[in-house]
Amino acid sequence: MYINGVYCQDYAVVFDTQIIEVGDVEIIKANYPDCFVEDLGAGSLLFPGFVNTHVHLEFSSNQTTLQYGSFVGWLESVLIAREEIIQGSTLEVIKGAMNAMLSSGVCAFGAISSYARELEALATTKQKVVFFNELIGSNPQSIDALYADFVRRIEESSCYPHITPAIAIHAPYSVHPVAIVKALRLAKEKNLLVSSHFMESRAEKEWLGGSYGEFKPFFEKYLGVSSSLCSKEEFLSLFRATPTHFTHATQIDEEDINTLKSYHHTIAHCPRSNRLLGSAPMPLAKIIEKEIAFSTATDGLSSNYSLNILDELRSALMIHSDIQLSTLADKLIESITKSANAILGLNGGVIEKGRDAHFVLLRLSNLPSQSALLSLWSILHNERASRVYVDGEVVFNKV
Amino acid sequence: MYINGVYCQDYAVVFDTQIIEVGDVEIIKANYPDCFVEDLGAGSLLFPGFVNTHVHLEFSSNQTTLQYGSFVGWLESVLIAREEIIQGSTLEVIKGAMNAMLSSGVCAFGAISSYARELEALATTKQKVVFFNELIGSNPQSIDALYADFVRRIEESSCYPHITPAIAIHAPYSVHPVAIVKALRLAKEKNLLVSSHFMESRAEKEWLGGSYGEFKPFFEKYLGVSSSLCSKEEFLSLFRATPTHFTHATQIDEEDINTLKSYHHTIAHCPRSNRLLGSAPMPLAKIIEKEIAFSTATDGLSSNYSLNILDELRSALMIHSDIQLSTLADKLIESITKSANAILGLNGGVIEKGRDAHFVLLRLSNLPSQSALLSLWSILHNERASRVYVDGEVVFNKV
Repeated sequence: MYINGVYCQDYAVVFDTQIIEVGDVEIIKANYPDCFVEDLGAGSLLFPGFVNTHVHLEFSSNQTTLQYGSFVGWLESVLIAREEIIQGSTLEVIKGAMNAMLSSGVCAFGAISSYARELEALATTKQKVVFFNELIGSNPQSIDALYADFVRRIEESSCYPHITPAIAIHAPYSVHPVAIVKALRLAKEKNLLVSSHFMESRAEKEWLGGSYGEFKPFFEKYLGVSSSLCSKEEFLSLFRATPTHFTHATQIDEEDINTLKSYHHTIAHCPRSNRLLGSAPMPLAKIIEKEIAFSTATDGLSSNYSLNILDELRSALMIHSDIQLSTLADKLIESITKSANAILGLNGGVIEKGRDAHFVLLRLSNLPSQSALLSLWSILHNERASRVYVDGEVVFNKV
Repeated sequence: MYINGVYCQDYAVVFDTQIIEVGDVEIIKANYPDCFVEDLGAGSLLFPGFVNTHVHLEFSSNQTTLQYGSFVGWLESVLIAREEIIQGSTLEVIKGAMNAMLSSGVCAFGAISSYARELEALATTKQKVVFFNELIGSNPQSIDALYADFVRRIEESSCYPHITPAIAIHAPYSVHPVAIVKALRLAKEKNLLVSSHFMESRAEKEWLGGSYGEFKPFFEKYLGVSSSLCSKEEFLSLFRATPTHFTHATQIDEEDINTLKSYHHTIAHCPRSNRLLGSAPMPLAKIIEKEIAFSTATDGLSSNYSLNILDELRSALMIHSDIQLSTLADKLIESITKSANAILGLNGGVIEKGRDAHFVLLRLSNLPSQSALLSLWSILHNERASRVYVDGEVVFNKV
């Protein structure tokens, strides 16, 4: 059993919808003589439910429509095909995407939502959801209408017991600073979590750094704009009083890292999405060294090929070859349990008394001789989860 | 249909055990009015059978026994657990490993064999096999006996129509140069292909470069040896007249690359194995730039977690983020078809008249709007093959 970074052998957990007690199986049996104790068998590993902090479900129908390989090329393809993809992302498609996450052990996720069109599907899931209503709009003429719609969506997403409303600022290059300030004030008032894409691509870095690079012709063509709304520093300064979950951060430098650390910001690391949209790998070794909290997340099917969080960790192991393998495996497991749970302000993430009873069962067919590499073996040898519990109930069983 | 690097739409192939004709489906129908033409459906992609040039099947029972993360740590764990793993690699286990390859589209493979213990299993497969009998031994006292056993194994592996005997030199640090010369002479006489591990780890590089580094205490402890048998340059010079398939090559420099190119050597690139044993990524961009022929291969389950060649390509896409995504995808498909086939001297690898009728059917559920990213979509969206043909016969069908 994985408890707060340590693998404890022959442990048992007593739970209803929450965890009642955790400990050595013999002690548990003695303390709860009337309870049925299920032996999960040799090679079983019980983890707290996994948490995927960043996924765009409204774009789940994309498979080969959007152009992968370069960020600006991808963004242009989004502008062209957005309507088609959203129309294709039906209730059934979005349910399929949520089930794909569930079958990989994801018991809670952060849904980044542009239109709140996925709310109907989300209403049906047993997974816990933090629903990041996204604000986008840089044109002062239309920003009031967009902001009003954004506020309406926040209200709409506040009506479900398993869904926590939250706020997403789209990106430094796409939201007017005045609107950001307004949204952050609202977040403070309503005590809402905040997330934002940040430094995803080299194009974004160059645009914010001096209105040059690949974004220049893009902005001139599509928005008739020839300079950036704000610099990177100006953007970050807006978030000084609001610890924010920044997504991607592939292009950050030493100074940015210090700023993120100073203001208690966190990072959503989406390794496959970054590679597929042509960005350099996020400097994860430095993030770990500076002890900045990070989650590993799948992003949406608009920039990935699966929402399986274990696929994401396997890819992360391959991408960050500068980090020692088993150290990285341990960090990655932490990034989708304790860290991701804390980032989303949920009550799972650790198997301990009082937490929600979300569990993921993984299995190893060979019993490893030592526990040092258990995170690594768990990631490498489980294509999907064997069983998943949400609120103490089995919600997925591998056939 | 993937023909020699180009995706041809609405093509058909006529075949028995070999390919009789390939062309536009309407022309084929007109030319073969009595033939049944199966329509594979929209989104179907037919590839030549995939080729995995480097796999150690005798170690297929390993899952969590060997220590991953550092090459020397792994090698020590091999010394300790070798017998247990080989005993566990029963006929059924090896058949399972071959089927796992087959279900990912592998119609032919290069089996690196230490003991010829997997021959019984190989005798049962329909896949084509190049059987690399491995020579190992650095101690002059025992080398004659080891060499005699090596020759015996070559003979033993010469008795099967679908198995081509070949020679593997274990590595520069583990085979006495005199034995290498003898083996290469035998290869020349019998016209056998030659493969060798080369520059897999930093430890190997430092040991060959000046008898220092992590290998020094290892060799002193296990072999009572304190200096390398030969330098990297001396080793490579032995292969001047023998174009060789060098495996790994993660630590090669500009000069090595020029040497490999000059003597028509090729490379087996095993990206997951390299990462899992703690090596830096192979400099693939340079290999491509210098137009050195390379295959992408899985290595064995002794240093990997699956023998699925499509998993290997997905990982390669993630690892080599310095190479443009779709360019790399095209190169990777070539590396397991045309290139790998040519390296192993087989008659598959391309869908053209006269070649063996080995095919892999992959599928995309959405029809892509353009063909530029077809290699990428094929790799990303097919966990396994949909159907596989060997010698014109369906040998795998996804349930």
